[in-house]
Amino acid sequence: MSKIITVGREFGSGGRELGRRLAEELGIQYYDKEIISEIAKNTSLSESYVQQVVEGKPHRLFPISIGQSFAVAPDYQMLQMQSIYTAQTEIITRLAEKGDCIIIGRCADYILRDYKPLKIFVYADLESRVRRCLERRPEGESLTEEQIRRQIIAIDKDRARYYNDFTGQKWGDKRFYDVCINTTDLVIKDMVPHIAKLF
Amino acid sequence: MSKIITVGREFGSGGRELGRRLAEELGIQYYDKEIISEIAKNTSLSESYVQQVVEGKPHRLFPISIGQSFAVAPDYQMLQMQSIYTAQTEIITRLAEKGDCIIIGRCADYILRDYKPLKIFVYADLESRVRRCLERRPEGESLTEEQIRRQIIAIDKDRARYYNDFTGQKWGDKRFYDVCINTTDLVIKDMVPHIAKLF
Repeated sequence: MSKIITVGREFGSGGRELGRRLAEELGIQYYDKEIISEIAKNTSLSESYVQQVVEGKPHRLFPISIGQSFAVAPDYQMLQMQSIYTAQTEIITRLAEKGDCIIIGRCADYILRDYKPLKIFVYADLESRVRRCLERRPEGESLTEEQIRRQIIAIDKDRARYYNDFTGQKWGDKRFYDVCINTTDLVIKDMVPHIAKLF
Repeated sequence: MSKIITVGREFGSGGRELGRRLAEELGIQYYDKEIISEIAKNTSLSESYVQQVVEGKPHRLFPISIGQSFAVAPDYQMLQMQSIYTAQTEIITRLAEKGDCIIIGRCADYILRDYKPLKIFVYADLESRVRRCLERRPEGESLTEEQIRRQIIAIDKDRARYYNDFTGQKWGDKRFYDVCINTTDLVIKDMVPHIAKLF
């Protein structure tokens, strides 16, 4: 059975960076956005739509890429969410079967529970996450600090809802993780080589 | 300024073992029960009484070691708790001033907040904590598994109350710690050398 590490993370906490560096340090595969592309391929939905659903965004419109925009019956929406989650489960399981890897988010900790992954959750104070997002915002992005703050809160609320609905667990609740790391006062780059040795 | 590590822990999670091993690994001081003895000396109260108060136990009687048992006015109780917390603050600060160290429990993470300690919280599933307590119970102890389970829950409830009352923070809430470690599936002895390198 493969050695699997899953990384849940609050938006802006540096969880993705921690996962990526950890994969480099351990010399193992790292899966993040490619999971979304695979789900899109498997379900014939657009990547941006899949991304929205997996991040728990409310989605009252049919994905524009496969049809005209119009209100959709709730039952149909639910079926579509279910089919996305099913694809997500299959793809994440297939990746885990391939060998040692680190998987970022996407309920992988729950989906792979029979593989006994090492489950990490990365978090930080809101203000430190706002600072991180400000420092790393792409050139030309014009969001104000207050808009970024509101965006962080909204994204995490959506992530939590999707995770809680599909796993029956509570997103970010330390009971469901092996190690929780607060990056507010810690330097990710410095920590990673030592975290790597834990496993 | 000294390098300080504080270890909060759920009863039976192995937090004390983790702290002790970490201190050995880092070659620094380790403070645990001696804090209670010092508070007792400073307040002229009995060690067992101080221990009870610091663990948040309800205490409606005057400590038998310094007077006859009788009901005490709530104001007096509150003053006594306050004086114990004041002594606790002074002693823990004095220990931190002496040099690098690890301090187990006793609100040290909050008391030493200006020293920017590395704050660890150790926890585990209830059943794994029951198993740990059963394996390590002193010879002759006759508590049943169910009694141990109830004792663990009660001790943690008391610890949380004392901590929350005096610090205004929430005991065990990951926001207030740098690293939270779930010892349910991890072997403390194996982890410690690597945790040590984090700091």
